[in-house]
Amino acid sequence: MNPLVEQLLSGSRRAVARLLTMVENEREGVDEALAALFPHTGRAWVIGITGAPGTGKSSLVNALAKALRREGRTVGIIAVDPTSPFTGGAILGDRIRMRDLSGDTGVFIRSMATRGSLGGLARTTRDAIRVLDAAGFDVVLVETVGAGQSEVDIVRTAQTTVVVEAPGLGDDVQAIKAGILEIADVLVVNKADRPGADNTVRALRAMLELGHPVSRRRVIAHHGQLIEAAAPDSQAEPEALWVPPIVKTAATDETGFDELLAALERHYQHLRNGEAAAALERQRIEIELHDRLRQTLLGRLLASVSSDEIARVIERVQARQLDPQQAVQTILAIATSQES
Amino acid sequence: MNPLVEQLLSGSRRAVARLLTMVENEREGVDEALAALFPHTGRAWVIGITGAPGTGKSSLVNALAKALRREGRTVGIIAVDPTSPFTGGAILGDRIRMRDLSGDTGVFIRSMATRGSLGGLARTTRDAIRVLDAAGFDVVLVETVGAGQSEVDIVRTAQTTVVVEAPGLGDDVQAIKAGILEIADVLVVNKADRPGADNTVRALRAMLELGHPVSRRRVIAHHGQLIEAAAPDSQAEPEALWVPPIVKTAATDETGFDELLAALERHYQHLRNGEAAAALERQRIEIELHDRLRQTLLGRLLASVSSDEIARVIERVQARQLDPQQAVQTILAIATSQES
Repeated sequence: MNPLVEQLLSGSRRAVARLLTMVENEREGVDEALAALFPHTGRAWVIGITGAPGTGKSSLVNALAKALRREGRTVGIIAVDPTSPFTGGAILGDRIRMRDLSGDTGVFIRSMATRGSLGGLARTTRDAIRVLDAAGFDVVLVETVGAGQSEVDIVRTAQTTVVVEAPGLGDDVQAIKAGILEIADVLVVNKADRPGADNTVRALRAMLELGHPVSRRRVIAHHGQLIEAAAPDSQAEPEALWVPPIVKTAATDETGFDELLAALERHYQHLRNGEAAAALERQRIEIELHDRLRQTLLGRLLASVSSDEIARVIERVQARQLDPQQAVQTILAIATSQES
Repeated sequence: MNPLVEQLLSGSRRAVARLLTMVENEREGVDEALAALFPHTGRAWVIGITGAPGTGKSSLVNALAKALRREGRTVGIIAVDPTSPFTGGAILGDRIRMRDLSGDTGVFIRSMATRGSLGGLARTTRDAIRVLDAAGFDVVLVETVGAGQSEVDIVRTAQTTVVVEAPGLGDDVQAIKAGILEIADVLVVNKADRPGADNTVRALRAMLELGHPVSRRRVIAHHGQLIEAAAPDSQAEPEALWVPPIVKTAATDETGFDELLAALERHYQHLRNGEAAAALERQRIEIELHDRLRQTLLGRLLASVSSDEIARVIERVQARQLDPQQAVQTILAIATSQES
């Protein structure tokens, strides 16, 4: 077996760090290592934390990790940073705040760059979660800056999704809520020591009551690409209805975190009752297989058509001689003629 | 020819509205209509406007449209709203602000829901731009809420990308800037009548100076999926270096918009000098063809493998008997055996 994988499975924190670096930089050998780790995954509780800028997600993750540690659970943290795809490094200074966790071997923190690519973030996050999962962390917290594709990716990788709000962030942010409310299993009004916190709670409650109750599985199917290809029976039995609780926290003085833990725990139990957790995992796997199939199939196709031929088709599209769908058919026809 | 397409090409605003609705709801017949429109596209100047929540993007788009109208140009506006994928409707009340443009037949405004799907937004936006382009609008403004996948999609569809900032939005938003600075052709500090505007300008300038000068074509290649498949020569000659100007505006009293227009115009001329604009379009087409090929190939594959067989593979992954890459190989082997 891969020595790095062996070291990770026997508890080496350094092996965790090295494997995460391999995942992040898509180093050679990472696929083999992940394949070797895969049988050891599936045990961690993955909690996604998302929310608009300014809601204090990072401090909340910090305080939540401490609360989980007090219960004796080990915690892996993946903080997806909105960094530059070119300069590479994380810009957020707020990782420094996490220093007070760093003496504790029961916590592992990794900031990751988003790198901007569509599939890239989802894939890297998914693989990083698997590394921490296989390494035996009880809970994996995944933090992203919300308001975009990132929270959809969280839903696709997390079992429990926390959406963080804060009082007084203005109308534009209110509007975003509409989109992310539906992925929330637990809603947090952070910075609850600020004026207006109760108004925010009321507004969220009103929005929740307005919205239709939606099964989590439908949300995932909706956000996944090519949902029309999903087996119809995979949406058959929606799990029992879960109404997202709203919890007020103040990460600065760590109030509200017992309540938050209790709410998260209730959601975890809810998932484990009945078939919900297994059904969710099936759906996640299906989405992942579709992603991988898409990439593999395109890779094969492009390997069988020369880049000159592709360039000529692109030129004809540019000259408006072909529309994009005709161009696709043309490329597929070239590939078929090569094969025969 | 499709009567709706004919009406659109002869200037009917009602036909524009109906075609956009078809695009948005993926109605039957939309692909044929878009194919018929395609030869009439490629003339509009597409400007993407993005930025974090609270920067006042919508008011800015409003004022920019008015400034373009004063120059005699017709303007189509696509506002991508962060709506709920379930309730469907747009939540943002601020479309109401655009009412003062609505008496003018030289302006066409459409709000579109994001619908949350990975490929969905990119595709819908791209098609909506084509409708407005074929309808003869000189400029198409595409507004999205930033900080996620959406601004990447803008880069992929717009010729000129405007990133909007505002004074005093806090550290979290500052961090986001790092990611979106690199897609900006023009930077706007909106709400410049607020205290701290000059600080924001200085901070942006410092970040620009810190960052490496990056050719726009590299950015697109980087953000595109499967960049490794791009022809190596497509990255060969980066266009002459463009340094994003920083413009201060106040959308409320419309100051700074002459400067903004001038900056946009300079970028447009810059694109037209040399091969930059054509190279950009080639790269956009390549990305689109890859997207479409991926979907088409997966659709074909799934049509040749029964959903029962897929479900069995998923179960084996769930039981950790197969890792995801082995599962992909298994599905491909099933498909191959079906064919022979």
